[in-house]
Amino acid sequence: MSTGFFGNLTSIPFEGPDSRNPLAFRHYNPEEMVMGKRMEDHLRFAVAYWHSFTWPGGDPFGGQTFERPWFGDTMDKARLKADVAFEMFSLLKAPYFCFHDLDVRPEGDTFAESRKNLETIADHFETRMAETGVKLLWGTANLFSHRRFMAGASTNPDPDVFAYSAATVKACMDVTKRLKGENYVLWGGREGYETLLNTDMGRELDQMGRFLNLVVEYKHKIGFTGTILIEPKPQEPTKHQYDYDVATVYGFLKRYGLENEVRVNIEQGHAILAGHSFEHELATARALGIFGSIDMNRNDYQSGWDTDQFPNNVPEMALAYYQVLLAGGFTTGGTNFDAKLRRQSLDAEDLLIAHIGGMDCCARGLKAAAAMVEDKALSGPLDQRYAGWDKPQAQAMLKGPETLDSIAARVEADGIDPQPRSGRQEYLENIVNRYV
Amino acid sequence: MSTGFFGNLTSIPFEGPDSRNPLAFRHYNPEEMVMGKRMEDHLRFAVAYWHSFTWPGGDPFGGQTFERPWFGDTMDKARLKADVAFEMFSLLKAPYFCFHDLDVRPEGDTFAESRKNLETIADHFETRMAETGVKLLWGTANLFSHRRFMAGASTNPDPDVFAYSAATVKACMDVTKRLKGENYVLWGGREGYETLLNTDMGRELDQMGRFLNLVVEYKHKIGFTGTILIEPKPQEPTKHQYDYDVATVYGFLKRYGLENEVRVNIEQGHAILAGHSFEHELATARALGIFGSIDMNRNDYQSGWDTDQFPNNVPEMALAYYQVLLAGGFTTGGTNFDAKLRRQSLDAEDLLIAHIGGMDCCARGLKAAAAMVEDKALSGPLDQRYAGWDKPQAQAMLKGPETLDSIAARVEADGIDPQPRSGRQEYLENIVNRYV
Amino acid sequence: MSTGFFGNLTSIPFEGPDSRNPLAFRHYNPEEMVMGKRMEDHLRFAVAYWHSFTWPGGDPFGGQTFERPWFGDTMDKARLKADVAFEMFSLLKAPYFCFHDLDVRPEGDTFAESRKNLETIADHFETRMAETGVKLLWGTANLFSHRRFMAGASTNPDPDVFAYSAATVKACMDVTKRLKGENYVLWGGREGYETLLNTDMGRELDQMGRFLNLVVEYKHKIGFTGTILIEPKPQEPTKHQYDYDVATVYGFLKRYGLENEVRVNIEQGHAILAGHSFEHELATARALGIFGSIDMNRNDYQSGWDTDQFPNNVPEMALAYYQVLLAGGFTTGGTNFDAKLRRQSLDAEDLLIAHIGGMDCCARGLKAAAAMVEDKALSGPLDQRYAGWDKPQAQAMLKGPETLDSIAARVEADGIDPQPRSGRQEYLENIVNRYV
Amino acid sequence: MSTGFFGNLTSIPFEGPDSRNPLAFRHYNPEEMVMGKRMEDHLRFAVAYWHSFTWPGGDPFGGQTFERPWFGDTMDKARLKADVAFEMFSLLKAPYFCFHDLDVRPEGDTFAESRKNLETIADHFETRMAETGVKLLWGTANLFSHRRFMAGASTNPDPDVFAYSAATVKACMDVTKRLKGENYVLWGGREGYETLLNTDMGRELDQMGRFLNLVVEYKHKIGFTGTILIEPKPQEPTKHQYDYDVATVYGFLKRYGLENEVRVNIEQGHAILAGHSFEHELATARALGIFGSIDMNRNDYQSGWDTDQFPNNVPEMALAYYQVLLAGGFTTGGTNFDAKLRRQSLDAEDLLIAHIGGMDCCARGLKAAAAMVEDKALSGPLDQRYAGWDKPQAQAMLKGPETLDSIAARVEADGIDPQPRSGRQEYLENIVNRYV
Repeated sequence: MSTGFFGNLTSIPFEGPDSRNPLAFRHYNPEEMVMGKRMEDHLRFAVAYWHSFTWPGGDPFGGQTFERPWFGDTMDKARLKADVAFEMFSLLKAPYFCFHDLDVRPEGDTFAESRKNLETIADHFETRMAETGVKLLWGTANLFSHRRFMAGASTNPDPDVFAYSAATVKACMDVTKRLKGENYVLWGGREGYETLLNTDMGRELDQMGRFLNLVVEYKHKIGFTGTILIEPKPQEPTKHQYDYDVATVYGFLKRYGLENEVRVNIEQGHAILAGHSFEHELATARALGIFGSIDMNRNDYQSGWDTDQFPNNVPEMALAYYQVLLAGGFTTGGTNFDAKLRRQSLDAEDLLIAHIGGMDCCARGLKAAAAMVEDKALSGPLDQRYAGWDKPQAQAMLKGPETLDSIAARVEADGIDPQPRSGRQEYLENIVNRYV
Repeated sequence: MSTGFFGNLTSIPFEGPDSRNPLAFRHYNPEEMVMGKRMEDHLRFAVAYWHSFTWPGGDPFGGQTFERPWFGDTMDKARLKADVAFEMFSLLKAPYFCFHDLDVRPEGDTFAESRKNLETIADHFETRMAETGVKLLWGTANLFSHRRFMAGASTNPDPDVFAYSAATVKACMDVTKRLKGENYVLWGGREGYETLLNTDMGRELDQMGRFLNLVVEYKHKIGFTGTILIEPKPQEPTKHQYDYDVATVYGFLKRYGLENEVRVNIEQGHAILAGHSFEHELATARALGIFGSIDMNRNDYQSGWDTDQFPNNVPEMALAYYQVLLAGGFTTGGTNFDAKLRRQSLDAEDLLIAHIGGMDCCARGLKAAAAMVEDKALSGPLDQRYAGWDKPQAQAMLKGPETLDSIAARVEADGIDPQPRSGRQEYLENIVNRYV
Repeated sequence: MSTGFFGNLTSIPFEGPDSRNPLAFRHYNPEEMVMGKRMEDHLRFAVAYWHSFTWPGGDPFGGQTFERPWFGDTMDKARLKADVAFEMFSLLKAPYFCFHDLDVRPEGDTFAESRKNLETIADHFETRMAETGVKLLWGTANLFSHRRFMAGASTNPDPDVFAYSAATVKACMDVTKRLKGENYVLWGGREGYETLLNTDMGRELDQMGRFLNLVVEYKHKIGFTGTILIEPKPQEPTKHQYDYDVATVYGFLKRYGLENEVRVNIEQGHAILAGHSFEHELATARALGIFGSIDMNRNDYQSGWDTDQFPNNVPEMALAYYQVLLAGGFTTGGTNFDAKLRRQSLDAEDLLIAHIGGMDCCARGLKAAAAMVEDKALSGPLDQRYAGWDKPQAQAMLKGPETLDSIAARVEADGIDPQPRSGRQEYLENIVNRYV
Repeated sequence: MSTGFFGNLTSIPFEGPDSRNPLAFRHYNPEEMVMGKRMEDHLRFAVAYWHSFTWPGGDPFGGQTFERPWFGDTMDKARLKADVAFEMFSLLKAPYFCFHDLDVRPEGDTFAESRKNLETIADHFETRMAETGVKLLWGTANLFSHRRFMAGASTNPDPDVFAYSAATVKACMDVTKRLKGENYVLWGGREGYETLLNTDMGRELDQMGRFLNLVVEYKHKIGFTGTILIEPKPQEPTKHQYDYDVATVYGFLKRYGLENEVRVNIEQGHAILAGHSFEHELATARALGIFGSIDMNRNDYQSGWDTDQFPNNVPEMALAYYQVLLAGGFTTGGTNFDAKLRRQSLDAEDLLIAHIGGMDCCARGLKAAAAMVEDKALSGPLDQRYAGWDKPQAQAMLKGPETLDSIAARVEADGIDPQPRSGRQEYLENIVNRYV
């Protein structure tokens, strides 16, 4: 029942590190046990519909480069696209996929028609999911591509756009629930501004806070048990996006009383654009208790826009999965490849090879991270570094009853004159390099 | 009673826009009424002790360039420095100044000696303040220069550094209160990390939250009526500073229950380093209700470090003061020049000229901003843009009782199909250019 | 003979600085004399076809927002587009326009058909140019949008693409010459690489050098008397573009023996993306003797991609035109608006208003720059600063016969111990602020 | 004859990849043969005097953190410093070192005294070099730290500074020659500007061009057979440094006729600050024929200043040494660690551990690069990609006699319509990941 798009290929085997077969895994072995859990269950890979099957290869200075038999705006093409997609998910042994409404169905003439198209294609998905065993990591709504969203979705100055967006999210949540999606994601690509001159930021934040509360209420109403996730990004396409980074999203959730209801889906590329390392964003989410899922890609360090490349730097992946493991690993979340081929990578094979390389890179990173956790390679020195805080006097400062003046009195009475100790950064960096 | 450092100069007059006298104001006229308030009372200028009187002109690749008679680590030098400083404040008609403990007194051999040196110099300040009428906008403690703080102050792995920092802040708050300072500022220059490998972020945030709570409690205990301000900065000297930007600080305050106790002191250069425009940070603070004060300087747009230059771009200042006016203007806050001479600007005159230029630039910005406010030049179009939200149906979405599904039903029933309207950005930009 | 696109508007008058009419000039007065030359002849404004008439309002995350009656891929639409374009050029009193082949004609099924379409539309242009008096500042070929150019034009690994590009440039040069264009521009949007892994940089540079030599030879062969211009850009769409910035282009021209044949067309936004200020790129071109023309826009300082906004910061424009005047002003070059509306600026009026604002901003900048030149406001202090180099001993070092060891001997013999002098940066910044 | 600074340590052994000894090499094995050459002879490691022995641990917001027994401004301290330095070079088996004059000797009261101090310490170096076998990779002069250089060295507005700089370079070249240095480096840290307002760029470039010509003439005069190297950097401490990047330096060398006399010393961190990848700068130097040597460190990708960290990312090192091998490997050049400890890394051991980690990282990179070269892993696909250029018709375009019009005629005659082929970027990235 192959679509033929990938030729005669029927599987992508795991062949181990020495393989030179570009269509084999060298590190991703779903059944391999890592810290007592199958590698597949750690990584929970998902493939993204949008980049791999919908994006035509355009960039701001050039148009379509890919020529795919499923390009076109009909239900038949949508079904063909789905068939190829599920074939690829299976070939890659990816247990999950993710999609926006716009990725999978033609736009209708009315909202109702768009919704029905989505529901029809969801029927098709159900069949393919049953056949292949592939599951839905998360669904989401595209509230940024159509011109109606040009000035925002929930933050639009026009309340009709807020309404249209609400209806769209409802439809997508309904489908996500039906397909047993494990999360529902909101990326506010147009929730921000182009210029402060025409923007009332306070008002728009309130609109966005209300919108998210409506989403959470609806989740509970329909009994959707997945996690609601916000995906931070600092800018692009907007000059400024309100969900700038993890710390900003945290403040937003606190402001609108949602910090226990919503978590974050962190993308490597968005972290870089926000001026952070990927592991920083992961560590921040962990520290603030809102870590949810990851969008895996990489951003070119020399480019100021979202390059969404497949990850290829193992040491960076090791540090990322180290944070994931410290956060307790994924619960409903997973590793979604929000990564796209370079627009010159025209061949069907390129799609497979890119995912294989990315999955192998993540698998190597995970294994290195797990070894560091098991060896307490970094946590041992860390505990030592903060050991002074275990003492009663230190705890009294931290938990009370000490006050600023009681501490000050003690400093003078005891002649406290703290002496610095080495932070041992290079030592720790060398340790990491033993594992990667 | 001139120190002679500025030669025979006895005043810097306001001479109006046509003056070519480099030692005269062309725009800053303290008594001029702007929106019914004296210009001085709008701008509330302060001069920073550190850059103007303490910084020797060094940079990461070169040492001291300035040769000042007060350089040296004795109380006599500290008094001479104060005398020159107050002479400059007076010449500039700056109503305020700001300082760190380290700027104004020699470091003692013990904490107690350092504290006493600070208190002694504060006596001297009291005399000079009484003579000149110059007031204290804010005091602060330097918890970043000495090697004891290299791994953080309140966030240090060593609780003794936390204690030392607490004692230092207490001493500085005491002096600030005595000198009738109108605010107390905390800039966490070392509260962050160099590498996540040796850092427990969650623990350090808790330490920092506790520290700030101790400060607020002490403020109330001693009856200090000024505002506690945090000054955000994304990085430098650390790789990452926890008080990254305004939105991050807001989340931090919410997390530790301090959003009604603490406000932000926003620096132009720090905004730029965080990837934001200055007016963005101001608008964010306004939207979140935590706007306090500003550190005025400018960062070079092509440099990735804190350049702390004097402001010189009037259109940017107009947009900044526009946000300040929309926030209701300064209450306890003000415009502190956290700006330093270029290290090649060796002459006494350079110090004056830099401040004159910066003050004139702010004054022009303020006047333009005030005119825009009075003309409703931007707020008129803004109100129009969001007018749709005044309708009951829109309010029902925003305030209830609408829900996601009731909205969705209405979208389908009414066939809602929102049509975009021009955002008119260029029109608004041209309007601003009529005022600057 | 109005197209009706701009309603009944028949002219955009100059009304002076106090006008509040959004459809009037406040500063651009073509006939006003500046340093003995008409303002129009200084600024030599051109309007760009691509952004204003061809770009549909898309960005990487969203599609078309503009709805223009001339969108569509037929010759009739192309003629309508031209009619609206020339109407706008006339309304704006812009003496020039600029275009790519792709902007003005439908793509044909073959190269020959594309070429013929171009020639046909050029006939139409000739008529409109004669009617309106609008002239062609420069023509250029789009060698980046079509998928055939995805891996480069002259630098493509496939020599057929080199050939196709050569044929395209020839056709565009022919038309440019016929339309009496005053320059011919090459922007190498795809002349660079996505990854070094598949790139032979040395080979590609040689291809590009050869291509430019072919262009220059052809120019002389056909007697085209305009200037050949290269437009530097550091990246985007490519990861790296070989024409990175002015200094890089200079090295390239020297390498291929073209430094006396080719000059640069400098874009503000590209300067910013390359990590430079606009005036830096202008000053560099002046110092290296290759200044040609400018593409006027502005890049958002917080965005890492080409935002191509209309300029609105007068102080920056003053510094830019100051460099242009120091370079002797434009000869064949001019001020081309390579600026586009924000994608939310949907209305016909927005197109006019954006250009009016940009032209006014340039006019203010020019006037300020001219006043600084006439007053020797900056050049006076500059001459003083370097005055030491006029002395014979200094000239002997610079021109000979001094050598390293003769100089060293003199340093020891004379006990030379140079003392630094103030660079007076703030003083000079204040001077500039007197003019803007 | 140990100084005792490193305790009782007498050697740092190579123990292989499985070693957990932080004071052993796991990958750097000087004698191991790589592509038929000893690893030591490939890598040619040098240790930098300045960061490791002279830098006190300060940053723009904090002072000295390191406490070294040799800190102080006397000849005795200078000798102690040298003794510790040579002890470390030996422990690390680093065959080379590098230094500035300022690193190794106290500043004298006059130029002559400074020169004599340098010559005296050079005597001491000669002894230590003879004892240890450590050689000098390069010498250089510090023309940026002292206040006399604040406005430039050769580009100073004051010709006396030019003279002083010339004398300094002469003295350093003399010592470098005496110590059999294999290169002489110029880094123009102050050769640039803070503001264009006080800068005559054309004049300053001419001064710098003349200076470099004087240096080259002197090299030949004294028979120094090493290579003259320029080290590019885009900015910091200056706003703009004239030796911005490799391509800029190339243009500069061409302008002043020195492209066959001078090569580049490329620093990873400077590449990053200039907006380039390290391998880009290496590839550019190779393409332009001016590759010389490397300064090995890494810049934090999220920091906008020179962080000079020790390298730790093996995949990046592999791509870097791949370029070095393609360039034919080092001739006089080498791998100098222009890397400094983090200022919190206080212990003697940290100095060793940082270098060990960096050297191991380079060794792994070299081995991976060599394997890629030997397998033609990347060069094979590359040759295939450009194979079309081998055809006579392609060569006729590239070398002649084809012209723009003859090519155009052929395009039309043959109906050339080039079809894009996959660039296979992900495939190639996966290949690289097989080697690292």
